Amino acid sequence: MSIPETCKAMVLEEFGKPDVLRDIRIPARKPGDILVKVQVAGVCGTDVHQNLGDLSFTPPIPAIQGHETVGRIAELNGVTHDAVGQPLREGDRILWCHEWCGECYSCKILQQPFMCCRSRGYGFAPPEALRGGFAEYELVTAGTDVVRIPDSVDDLEALGVGCAFRSVVSNFEKLNDYGGIRTGDAVVVQGVGPIGLYSVVMAAQTGASQVIAVDMSEPRLKFAKKMGATSVISIKEVPEVADRVKLVKEMTNGLGAQVVVEASGFAPAFNEGMEYLALGGKYVVIGQSSARTIDFPPAKILEKYATIFGNKGADIRHFHKALKFIEAHKDKYPFGEVVSDLYPLEELNEALRVMREGTALKAAIDNRNR
Amino acid sequence: MSIPETCKAMVLEEFGKPDVLRDIRIPARKPGDILVKVQVAGVCGTDVHQNLGDLSFTPPIPAIQGHETVGRIAELNGVTHDAVGQPLREGDRILWCHEWCGECYSCKILQQPFMCCRSRGYGFAPPEALRGGFAEYELVTAGTDVVRIPDSVDDLEALGVGCAFRSVVSNFEKLNDYGGIRTGDAVVVQGVGPIGLYSVVMAAQTGASQVIAVDMSEPRLKFAKKMGATSVISIKEVPEVADRVKLVKEMTNGLGAQVVVEASGFAPAFNEGMEYLALGGKYVVIGQSSARTIDFPPAKILEKYATIFGNKGADIRHFHKALKFIEAHKDKYPFGEVVSDLYPLEELNEALRVMREGTALKAAIDNRNR
Amino acid sequence: MSIPETCKAMVLEEFGKPDVLRDIRIPARKPGDILVKVQVAGVCGTDVHQNLGDLSFTPPIPAIQGHETVGRIAELNGVTHDAVGQPLREGDRILWCHEWCGECYSCKILQQPFMCCRSRGYGFAPPEALRGGFAEYELVTAGTDVVRIPDSVDDLEALGVGCAFRSVVSNFEKLNDYGGIRTGDAVVVQGVGPIGLYSVVMAAQTGASQVIAVDMSEPRLKFAKKMGATSVISIKEVPEVADRVKLVKEMTNGLGAQVVVEASGFAPAFNEGMEYLALGGKYVVIGQSSARTIDFPPAKILEKYATIFGNKGADIRHFHKALKFIEAHKDKYPFGEVVSDLYPLEELNEALRVMREGTALKAAIDNRNR
Amino acid sequence: MSIPETCKAMVLEEFGKPDVLRDIRIPARKPGDILVKVQVAGVCGTDVHQNLGDLSFTPPIPAIQGHETVGRIAELNGVTHDAVGQPLREGDRILWCHEWCGECYSCKILQQPFMCCRSRGYGFAPPEALRGGFAEYELVTAGTDVVRIPDSVDDLEALGVGCAFRSVVSNFEKLNDYGGIRTGDAVVVQGVGPIGLYSVVMAAQTGASQVIAVDMSEPRLKFAKKMGATSVISIKEVPEVADRVKLVKEMTNGLGAQVVVEASGFAPAFNEGMEYLALGGKYVVIGQSSARTIDFPPAKILEKYATIFGNKGADIRHFHKALKFIEAHKDKYPFGEVVSDLYPLEELNEALRVMREGTALKAAIDNRNR
Repeated sequence: MSIPETCKAMVLEEFGKPDVLRDIRIPARKPGDILVKVQVAGVCGTDVHQNLGDLSFTPPIPAIQGHETVGRIAELNGVTHDAVGQPLREGDRILWCHEWCGECYSCKILQQPFMCCRSRGYGFAPPEALRGGFAEYELVTAGTDVVRIPDSVDDLEALGVGCAFRSVVSNFEKLNDYGGIRTGDAVVVQGVGPIGLYSVVMAAQTGASQVIAVDMSEPRLKFAKKMGATSVISIKEVPEVADRVKLVKEMTNGLGAQVVVEASGFAPAFNEGMEYLALGGKYVVIGQSSARTIDFPPAKILEKYATIFGNKGADIRHFHKALKFIEAHKDKYPFGEVVSDLYPLEELNEALRVMREGTALKAAIDNRNR
Repeated sequence: MSIPETCKAMVLEEFGKPDVLRDIRIPARKPGDILVKVQVAGVCGTDVHQNLGDLSFTPPIPAIQGHETVGRIAELNGVTHDAVGQPLREGDRILWCHEWCGECYSCKILQQPFMCCRSRGYGFAPPEALRGGFAEYELVTAGTDVVRIPDSVDDLEALGVGCAFRSVVSNFEKLNDYGGIRTGDAVVVQGVGPIGLYSVVMAAQTGASQVIAVDMSEPRLKFAKKMGATSVISIKEVPEVADRVKLVKEMTNGLGAQVVVEASGFAPAFNEGMEYLALGGKYVVIGQSSARTIDFPPAKILEKYATIFGNKGADIRHFHKALKFIEAHKDKYPFGEVVSDLYPLEELNEALRVMREGTALKAAIDNRNR
Repeated sequence: MSIPETCKAMVLEEFGKPDVLRDIRIPARKPGDILVKVQVAGVCGTDVHQNLGDLSFTPPIPAIQGHETVGRIAELNGVTHDAVGQPLREGDRILWCHEWCGECYSCKILQQPFMCCRSRGYGFAPPEALRGGFAEYELVTAGTDVVRIPDSVDDLEALGVGCAFRSVVSNFEKLNDYGGIRTGDAVVVQGVGPIGLYSVVMAAQTGASQVIAVDMSEPRLKFAKKMGATSVISIKEVPEVADRVKLVKEMTNGLGAQVVVEASGFAPAFNEGMEYLALGGKYVVIGQSSARTIDFPPAKILEKYATIFGNKGADIRHFHKALKFIEAHKDKYPFGEVVSDLYPLEELNEALRVMREGTALKAAIDNRNR
Repeated sequence: MSIPETCKAMVLEEFGKPDVLRDIRIPARKPGDILVKVQVAGVCGTDVHQNLGDLSFTPPIPAIQGHETVGRIAELNGVTHDAVGQPLREGDRILWCHEWCGECYSCKILQQPFMCCRSRGYGFAPPEALRGGFAEYELVTAGTDVVRIPDSVDDLEALGVGCAFRSVVSNFEKLNDYGGIRTGDAVVVQGVGPIGLYSVVMAAQTGASQVIAVDMSEPRLKFAKKMGATSVISIKEVPEVADRVKLVKEMTNGLGAQVVVEASGFAPAFNEGMEYLALGGKYVVIGQSSARTIDFPPAKILEKYATIFGNKGADIRHFHKALKFIEAHKDKYPFGEVVSDLYPLEELNEALRVMREGTALKAAIDNRNR
C-alpha cells in the first residue's frame, strides 16, 4: 500500500471549541510500528468531556481524539502476528489496546497489564504522533498489543470492542473469578448505553435466568430487549427509586438480584444498585467515572452481605474475548446496531454534539468511503 | 384427594430377573411426610445395573426402584412450603432429592448436603416403605427437601432434573467456584446421553463460544446440536483417539479445550479427555461411576497445568437451579425430548431393556393416564 | 446435675438504666433443648447500645442481654452430638450460634445459614425464655447449632469465638473464596479492638508478609504486636489521614496494602481504608454497623480496581474453625488476654460502663466461682 | 567489575559420564544482558537425570547444567530495575526465571508466562552460551525476568527459590484461586525433599491447623518438624499404605485431609494421596514428572468429590513471593538448612552423586570463595 505524506485529522486545539480539520504529516515508522487506515472511530462520552475540558484531569492539547478505532493495516514494519498468535497481513483489520510498559508491578507481578501505572493511551497524544482515531491514518506504535478482527465480524460489530465491550469483558472476568453468575441468577443492569447493552448480552449468555434493564430511555430499553434483557424497568414510568427497588424484588421472588451491574455513570445510582442486591449479591461497578460523591452508609455492605468491585479498562485479552463472543453469538444479537449514527470525519463536531446531547446511542466517524 | 389403601408397584425381587407387579399397602403418613402420585419416573442406567445386581455395591432386595420422579402431591401432612419458600398445595407437582441427615460434617460444616455421609436415597428401599418411583404412589418422607415444579415446565421437561440435570448443575456450580467457563472458551463434552446433553446446553448458555460434542451415536450427536452443540465429532467417523484429539486441536486454534466434560461413563475416556485439554484447562468428570481402572500417568496433570474435579450427586439447590434454567431457556431448547420412550408402569421391564441395550436416550414410566 | 427452680439474671428493663438483678424461673425443657450453666459471658459494644436503646432498631424489653457465652452443659435432653459430630456429655463446655430457621432461601439454597432471614438470636429474648448470657443459666433451645470447646482451650480463650472471632472467620472465609491473602501480601487492619485483633492474628497465620495495625490506643497497638502485627501506626502520632496513607504506601514499596480490614466501626474510616488499598486490592469490611453515612465517590472503586465485601455474623462452621485456629496457634498468641476485665454477674453495669467508656478491651461476666 | 575473557565451567559432554571442567569464553553481551558471577548453584534431581540422559526428552549436549542459581551482578548492560521495580546495581544478588517469548497465547491471553510454549530455559544451553549455573559466570540474557535478593536473605536461604520453592508458590497460588487452605484445615504433604519442605512451611503459614508430613527418611521428617509439620508419618514405621491412610483419618477426626500435596515424585503415591483426601478435598500435585503410569479408577474423583491440580514451573511473580515469604518468616524456620551439602565447582560430579544416591537433601555448588 502506498502511504501518503500527510493525512487529514480533526484536532482538539481549544477546550470547549470544535475540533479543527488539519493536515498532519504521517510520522516516520520504526520497526514494530503498525500504520493503519482508520475505518471507523467511535465517539465516546470521554471524547465529549475531553473536548469540553471537564474530565477529572486536564488532558494535553492540541490532540487528536478518538480511542476506539477499527483500523485497516497499511504497513506492518516487521510485525508478523497479533497477540493471539494469528498472522497479520496488510489489509487486515485490527483493534488495539493502550500501550503498557510491561515492566511495572501490575504488568510483571500482578500480570494485569490494564492496571499498568505507565500506560500510554491512544486519543490523547499530540497531532504529530498520529495516535488518535479521528484521522485518516493512525500509528499503532511498537509494543502495543493488537488483535486481528475475524472476517466474520464486520466493522460496526467490532467497533464497540474498542472501548465499552472490552471493559465489560474485563469486569465479567473478575465476576467469574468471584464465582460468576450462577445458574438461575437474576441480573439487573443499571443504564443501557453501550456499557449496559454489552452487560445485558453477556449476562444473557453467561448463565443468568433473568436480565432486567433499567433506563429512562424507551428506545434504549427496547434495544436492550433485542440484546437479551428479559424485562425492563423504565425510569420514566417508575420515577421513584423505592418503587423500582420494590419492582426488582417482585420480579425476583422477593430476593433481589444476585448480580447488579452499574452502567449508568450516574453517581447516585450506586445507592440504588445496592438496594437491588439480594443478600450475598455481587455489585459490578463499571460505569462510574465522575469525581462526584454520594451519601453512603458503609454498614450497608454488611447488611447486604455484599461484594462490590470494578475494573477500569481492559487489555488485549479482553478485546480477544469480546471478539470471540461476537463471533459466537452474532446471529442472535444485533451487535452492529449499537453504533447508531455515522458521520464523515469532517463532521466530528456533529457527532460530538449528538453524544453530548444524548440523542445518539453511539456515534462514530466513518472513513470507509475515503 | 382420597388415598387408596394400596397401590401398584413394580418390585425388584431377584437380581437379573424382571421386576414384578405387586400390590403394596400405602404406608401410614407422619407429620411432614408428603404422599405423591407418581406422574413420570425416569429409568436410569443405575436402575439397569441395580436390576442386574452388578452395581459396585449390593443393594437390598426386595425394593421398588426409581430415583428420578415427578410426583403430584396427594397429601401434604402439614408441609406448607418447598425448599425455595414457595407455598405447596395438593395437586402441585414436585421433585425431591435424597434425604440428608442434616447433622454430619458435610451437612453442618461443609454446608454441602449432597456429600452427607448418612444420606437415605429413594429407589433402594423395601416395598413397604414406598420410596421408589416405579409405583403409582410414592412417600416423600419428612426431612426430604422438595421443590415445586413451575407450571410453565411440563412433566417431561422436569423429569431429567431428578437425576442427570441436577448432577450437571452441581458440577457446573463447582466449575463456577473455580472461575467458570470464560468468555470465548471452547468446551468439549464426551458422551451425549442425558448427562452430556445437559452439559452441552449449560455450556452453551454459560459463556462458551464453542461446544463440541463427542459420541458414537449419530442421532445423539444430531440431538446435541439442537441442545446447543456448535460442532460434533462422531466416534464412528473418527475412530482413533489420536485423530479426535487432533481434530479438537484444529477446531480450537491449536489450543485444545479450556473445559472438558466427561459424560460418557467409559473409564478410558478419561485419558482421552486429558488430551483434549488446553494448557491450564479444567476437566469436569461427571460420568464416571464404574470401579474400572485405567493406565494413567499422574505427571500428565502437571504437563497440562490441569484442574480435574467432579461431584457425585446434588442437593435441592441444584434441582431448583436446573428448573430455573429450563424456565429461562425452554423456548430455545427441546428439554422434553431428552425423554425418548414412555412406557406404562407394567412395562417397566421393557423400559429397562431399551436402556440396557442403549437404543433409548432416556426411557420413563408414564402414569399420567392412570 | 441437679437443676434449681430459679436462677439469678441481670434484666434490661428500661433503656438507659442499669440492668436489674432478678430471680428467673428456669423454663421447662423440651427434647433437644440444652440447659447450660453460664461460665463466662462477654460484654460487647452491642450490649452497650442495646442497654442505651440506641441500636439501629428498637430491641424488645425486658430482656436478658448477652450473646457471647461459654456454657457448661447442665442438661442435654436427648442431644448426643455437636454440629461437628463430636459426642456431648453433661459437664462439657459449649458455644452456640443464633438459631436458624433451616428452611429459608439463605438456609436451603444459598447454604449460608448466617444470612437466615428468620434467625432467632440470643441476648434479646424476654427473661422467662432465659436466652441471654448475663444469667446463671441459659437455655440453648432445640435447633440451635452448638460446638464443644476442646479441653485444651480455656474459657477466656474460647470466649471471643462467640462474637468477634467467628465474625472474623466468616469474613476471612469469604476472602478465601475471592483468592485469599496471597503469599507476600501486606494487610492493614483498621482498629484493633477484638475484631481487629482477631483479624491481625488470622492475617499473620494466613499468608501475609506484613500485618499493619492502625489504632489510636497505644496499649491496643502493643497488644496487636503480640497478636502478630509486624508494624503499627498510631493515630495519635500520625493524626492526619493523608499522612497515614503515605506511611502505608512507604511500608509497602509504594503499592499500598493488598488487603485492608475495616475493624474500627468508625464510618469515615471506610474512605481511609480505600486509600490504603493497592491497585486490585481487597477491602474486608467487618466493623461497620452504624447507620452513619459518609461522602463516598463510587468512581473510587474503579480507580482502585477494588473489591469490597463484608459478612455480618457467622454460623457454627465459623465457631468450629475459630476453635481449631486457637488450638493450632495458642502457644504463639495470648488469645485469652483479649478478655481484659472480669466482673461478677451482679456487677454487669460496671462492665457495661467500662465498655461504653472504651477503657476495657473486652469486659466479661465471670460466673465460674458461683 | 572487570570481566575476564574466559571462565571455568563444568560441561556435560556425554550422557552417563562425569561433567568435565572446561574454560569457556565469556560471550559478548548485548543491551539488556546481565552477566553474573555465580555464587551458589543448586543441584536438582533434574540435573541428575539430565546427566544420565534419562529425562523424558533428550536434552542437547554439550551443555552447562544448573538451573537454580544465585548470581551476583557483574555487568548490567543498561538494565536498571528488576521485575518488581526495584533498582539494580552491580554487586546485587539476583535470581531469574526461564525466558518467555512474551507473545504466545499463554503469555498474552492467559497472562501465565510459566506456561509459555516457547520458553528458553537455563541449564540446557551449549557451553558457549554460558546459560547454566555450574560455572563461574552466567549470562542472563535480555528478556529474562530477574528479581533482586533482599539483603536480609542470605545465599543459601535464597537458593531454593530458584527451583523447588517457586514451584511450590506457583501451586499454592493456584490453590488460593480455588479457595485456599481454609481455617482449621489439615494438610498432608507426601514426601519432604525440598518441594515437600517448602510445601510444609507454606501450609503452616497459610492457615492450616495441622500439617502432616509423610516420608521414609527419619532425618527428613525431623527436619519437616522444624519447617512447621505438626506431625509426621514414617513410611518405615508404617509400611502399609492402608495403615497410613487409616492413620491420617485418625489424626483428622475421621475426615481425612482437606488438602494433600504430592511432593514425592513417586507415581504410585498418587493413588495413596487420593485416599488421604477428605470428601471435597483438594489434591495439589507438584512432584510428579516421570512418564510412569499407574492403575487409576477415574470414578475415585467423584467418590471423593475431589479437586486435583498441578502447575509445572513458575515465573518471576513466584520468585518474588517466595522471597517475601522467606523475609517474613526467616526467624521462625531454618530455610538455609534445606541446602545440606556444598561443593566447589570442580566437585560437581560428587554433588551429582549424593543427589543421585539420595543421601543429600540438597547439594549445591559454592563459588563464593573463588
